[in-house]
Amino acid sequence: MEFMGQSFLLHSETAKRLFELCRSEPIFDFHCHLSPKEIYEDKPFDNLAVLWLGGDHYKWRVMRAFGTEERFITGDASDYEKFRAWARVLPYCIGNPLYHWTHLELQRYFGITEPLSPKTADKIWENANRQIAGPGFTPRSIIRKSNVAALCTTDDPVDSLEYHRKLAEDPGFPVKVLPAFRPDMAFTPGAPGFTDWLRRLADASATAVDTFRGLREALSSRIGFFARMGCVASDHSFASVPFRPAADGELERIYAKAYGGGKLDACELEKYQTALLTYLAGEYSRHNIVMELHIGALRNNSEKMLREIGPNTGYDSMDDRPVAEPLGRFLSSLETAGTLPKTVFYTLNRKDNDPVVTMAGNFQSSRTNMQFGSAWWFNDHIDGMRRQLRDLANNGVLGNFIGMVTDSRSFLSYPRHEYFRRILCDLLGGFVERGEYPADFDTLSEIVRGISGRNALRYFGVSL
Amino acid sequence: MEFMGQSFLLHSETAKRLFELCRSEPIFDFHCHLSPKEIYEDKPFDNLAVLWLGGDHYKWRVMRAFGTEERFITGDASDYEKFRAWARVLPYCIGNPLYHWTHLELQRYFGITEPLSPKTADKIWENANRQIAGPGFTPRSIIRKSNVAALCTTDDPVDSLEYHRKLAEDPGFPVKVLPAFRPDMAFTPGAPGFTDWLRRLADASATAVDTFRGLREALSSRIGFFARMGCVASDHSFASVPFRPAADGELERIYAKAYGGGKLDACELEKYQTALLTYLAGEYSRHNIVMELHIGALRNNSEKMLREIGPNTGYDSMDDRPVAEPLGRFLSSLETAGTLPKTVFYTLNRKDNDPVVTMAGNFQSSRTNMQFGSAWWFNDHIDGMRRQLRDLANNGVLGNFIGMVTDSRSFLSYPRHEYFRRILCDLLGGFVERGEYPADFDTLSEIVRGISGRNALRYFGVSL
Amino acid sequence: MEFMGQSFLLHSETAKRLFELCRSEPIFDFHCHLSPKEIYEDKPFDNLAVLWLGGDHYKWRVMRAFGTEERFITGDASDYEKFRAWARVLPYCIGNPLYHWTHLELQRYFGITEPLSPKTADKIWENANRQIAGPGFTPRSIIRKSNVAALCTTDDPVDSLEYHRKLAEDPGFPVKVLPAFRPDMAFTPGAPGFTDWLRRLADASATAVDTFRGLREALSSRIGFFARMGCVASDHSFASVPFRPAADGELERIYAKAYGGGKLDACELEKYQTALLTYLAGEYSRHNIVMELHIGALRNNSEKMLREIGPNTGYDSMDDRPVAEPLGRFLSSLETAGTLPKTVFYTLNRKDNDPVVTMAGNFQSSRTNMQFGSAWWFNDHIDGMRRQLRDLANNGVLGNFIGMVTDSRSFLSYPRHEYFRRILCDLLGGFVERGEYPADFDTLSEIVRGISGRNALRYFGVSL
Repeated sequence: MEFMGQSFLLHSETAKRLFELCRSEPIFDFHCHLSPKEIYEDKPFDNLAVLWLGGDHYKWRVMRAFGTEERFITGDASDYEKFRAWARVLPYCIGNPLYHWTHLELQRYFGITEPLSPKTADKIWENANRQIAGPGFTPRSIIRKSNVAALCTTDDPVDSLEYHRKLAEDPGFPVKVLPAFRPDMAFTPGAPGFTDWLRRLADASATAVDTFRGLREALSSRIGFFARMGCVASDHSFASVPFRPAADGELERIYAKAYGGGKLDACELEKYQTALLTYLAGEYSRHNIVMELHIGALRNNSEKMLREIGPNTGYDSMDDRPVAEPLGRFLSSLETAGTLPKTVFYTLNRKDNDPVVTMAGNFQSSRTNMQFGSAWWFNDHIDGMRRQLRDLANNGVLGNFIGMVTDSRSFLSYPRHEYFRRILCDLLGGFVERGEYPADFDTLSEIVRGISGRNALRYFGVSL
Repeated sequence: MEFMGQSFLLHSETAKRLFELCRSEPIFDFHCHLSPKEIYEDKPFDNLAVLWLGGDHYKWRVMRAFGTEERFITGDASDYEKFRAWARVLPYCIGNPLYHWTHLELQRYFGITEPLSPKTADKIWENANRQIAGPGFTPRSIIRKSNVAALCTTDDPVDSLEYHRKLAEDPGFPVKVLPAFRPDMAFTPGAPGFTDWLRRLADASATAVDTFRGLREALSSRIGFFARMGCVASDHSFASVPFRPAADGELERIYAKAYGGGKLDACELEKYQTALLTYLAGEYSRHNIVMELHIGALRNNSEKMLREIGPNTGYDSMDDRPVAEPLGRFLSSLETAGTLPKTVFYTLNRKDNDPVVTMAGNFQSSRTNMQFGSAWWFNDHIDGMRRQLRDLANNGVLGNFIGMVTDSRSFLSYPRHEYFRRILCDLLGGFVERGEYPADFDTLSEIVRGISGRNALRYFGVSL
Repeated sequence: MEFMGQSFLLHSETAKRLFELCRSEPIFDFHCHLSPKEIYEDKPFDNLAVLWLGGDHYKWRVMRAFGTEERFITGDASDYEKFRAWARVLPYCIGNPLYHWTHLELQRYFGITEPLSPKTADKIWENANRQIAGPGFTPRSIIRKSNVAALCTTDDPVDSLEYHRKLAEDPGFPVKVLPAFRPDMAFTPGAPGFTDWLRRLADASATAVDTFRGLREALSSRIGFFARMGCVASDHSFASVPFRPAADGELERIYAKAYGGGKLDACELEKYQTALLTYLAGEYSRHNIVMELHIGALRNNSEKMLREIGPNTGYDSMDDRPVAEPLGRFLSSLETAGTLPKTVFYTLNRKDNDPVVTMAGNFQSSRTNMQFGSAWWFNDHIDGMRRQLRDLANNGVLGNFIGMVTDSRSFLSYPRHEYFRRILCDLLGGFVERGEYPADFDTLSEIVRGISGRNALRYFGVSL
């Protein structure tokens, strides 16, 4: 069969037909890590190595696993050398999603259909760089060419959102670039930079943060600001969602300790995080901001490499502790208080799929709406996406699913939406071809177009 | 392909041939939640909504996930409105087992082959209700029409088993309706209703239960009574099977505290539960009663909805704590004491499948017989059933499997046995078609008919 | 389809073509439990029952699950009776890997293609035993006939490696039989036999072991000896890899207690094991010995059978506790100290696959090389192998994989390499046929031949 041809991932006639129904749906990429500054400034890229290898720790990890020296990954080798190093690794990544993403990007953005390998590397390097040097390869051009209608970045509460404002005011760029509220730093008392960050939060909110009450007010003020700037989503990441309730007085004592630069013990930290997340959830609910919960990442496992090249460089992996019980108690406490916001759960460890899907099912109602998010990070491959869809279908309402996000730092990652849609259509096509669902294409069309973007627009309350 | 036609789920010629060999085997539904009173009284049903939506929290959950208002689920909307609400949700449940069960029930009981949707809802409502109003739709009629030879209900130790007795004495109803011993309440010291239940147990057994020894005697007396009434199965459900041995004196102290209405701490509770389960296991062994262990449910997660509409209304989900080590120590302690009964393990979380299958393999012998039970509750779908069968096949003896149970409160749920048999035959047919097992239809026939019911009859010692 | 014919497990033309490319690659079985003494002595076997049922607890387990009496498994029944008992069980093991292994062994070593069942048992018994009585069925003959180029046994540090030496000096047997260092006993202070083993270690190393420092020196001396004898691999097995650092002084105190025959508490034991494993890892690193870590076994679950027939008789199963966090901290501590050896991780519980694959990815570099080992023990079947390959492919570099080991006590188990290669080629063939990887047979050939043996030879530094 043709390598990654027209019917890539579409293994039945029904799958192909369904894909035709949704392939041109605009993308709403409601969770990514693009820089609004880079979008605003819209500078061209130097070459394919910068576009591909500049910050992509997915690629870095497999290069290290192959045995590539760090010099050719994050070190001082030239862009060309790094590209060659990547081309040398890629053929051995058989079965890895990077193999597919790399070629989808070559095909969709550069019209290059030849597989990348040491033999073809130079030709592809020259061809792609020639195109990159021309018009149409700036951040904004790529985003528009990718049929993106709206996207949510990931932003710190202390951020001024200056570039979001500028982009919103620019009539020449119709794509909605919305901020998302990600207060990671607030959850790390005792970490380096915590007290410095508190100072910046106090400045940004013009609120004293020397008490826990003050911290809450400051964050609340920033949530209000984010909401006025179009924010519809917040984001949190935990190995396991914490739940250890504490008394109010206790919290001020714990916070005072952290504020003074002291180190919290595990129990104090959990109480602090529980109280803070509970408070924020209430604020999200009040502002109709969706709460995204990323569950199961164990970060910065290599202390050596954290010291040498910093966080988010490819040294994170899956945690595997139990997550169901505290998650349930946390959600129940919000429900009882009437402050449960819309929530999207992303699981990094497949073992958490079923417990989380079924736990989400305990808090569904016409008021709140719990969503099981698309396959995340280390699951962002054919098996992982298929499993996420089946796990949701088996114990939830697949037709309501809000679909795919890139979760990416790269401007070239939008073909992952196509990848996802093909997998989705293949799954649904299989149901029909096997007689497990009727060949009712009106409903099927509504379902695949919904999951491709419309459900998410409605869920987040974003109009185009 | 035809929607849910003749060859539904049967993807090879061998699969179809195997299904023909077992499709008419009588059903022994050895674990369900039907009411013996309703079977005895044999009253007709009002309409399809009562039959389908009266107590089916599977359907309630997906309705809530779809965003249906509670009024149309468990509230005061009319039966017709509830049915319409269900018809509106169903098409979006693509890939969900409810989609298949709903249509299997329409096809097998009503001869309706059209898919249910808002468009067809009224026509199906009228057609089905016309049939329900006629003869042949009372509980007993449905059971007989479903080719059920025997079934086990789920009963409290304090139950008088009056309706079991009446059914056994009724020559007009040849189906065996056997009680099963489920002493849930005995495991919940400190819960509301515990002391009240103790009083009922004392009455039923004519035994004082003011000591742990008394409690044991009372339960033993009830087990003897159940056994005389034809009971062949007991049932327990735990997030994880407890194992924390205690001294005898300690247990009397713990029990005294619980008996007085006190609250046990986690450690006391675990000791109490360990001792009680250990004792009961010995009694089951003595009476040749099979012990069923349901592992991995986390119940009543929504405190709000528990208060508002009570337990078993769709607010349970999967737990995810480790289960292997205490389970092994519990089974080993019984084996050493010579009191290990036949045991069936059901897992709610697929992560427990392999640990439990392989743990069961440590306690097999010609005397005891450990069984890995069919896919339970949130796993009761194509993926879950296939996985349960493969997990058992890979590390056990699939040919000895005792097969499917409905575990249901609904009289219309017997087509799930057909669903299971189709999946089983498809799996085995695949083995043969791929040359992984010889086309020896004598043995294959024995295997599929065995798993369809005969193995269970032999295992539980029930003769027809 | 023909039962286990030419294209067994090969479901596409590309799969068949790939299998032709690697089927005759020599085997490097770098982890097994064969006896070097038996290889050296090369005595013929009595009959098929001795070859098959002498020590194979895989078969024993399914016989017990079927209900076979222990007399016919490990008891005093005749060899013929045991063989008949096995033939009676086998047809019910539909879907079990033993079904396939049994018939692969009959086909490849005896040319018998008929399925084993009670009907064919006598004929097969006579045919096989006639062949076993002839030449070509001694240990060495079987190994050579199996195309084995090198293998690693599993040896205690106190072992003299006398038979490894004799085999190395024997010009008539060109297969490399290398020792592997497995210091299990050193990790079991307080266990029966620990102090006796220490005495043997002191003798073997001519080193006093009355201090923890002495123990380390003694083990170091033995590692040096093993390395000189050609050892390239060490091996450890843990339910979960321990990580609880302690001060040096503390360790001497803990060791003194254990040395005196005292029992360590859980915390002391973990500190001791952490320190010992950390030390050994450094020694492996220094000697360029690969560290194999087997994760997730829960052993000797039946206390009764442990007393009656001893360990390694079929009473082990899968553990299910979390493993990621301590594993990460252990590896990071080695990395920081510059003592991280090449490491192979084997997981017994599939839930650990993704956490361990992604954790391994945190410590890859051109210096170290983390490998995710082949499907182990209870996963050694089609589903488990396929999953191991896909889990590795999805989050690692499948093309670098070091491939299959038998991990077996049986001389007839080499067809499991063929079984593995067929599954590998089927997976890769599927990628190509579905257009997920180009039909570049130069690269594909390198990949399948690499995984069939060459990658392992390079990884362990073994030249043929």
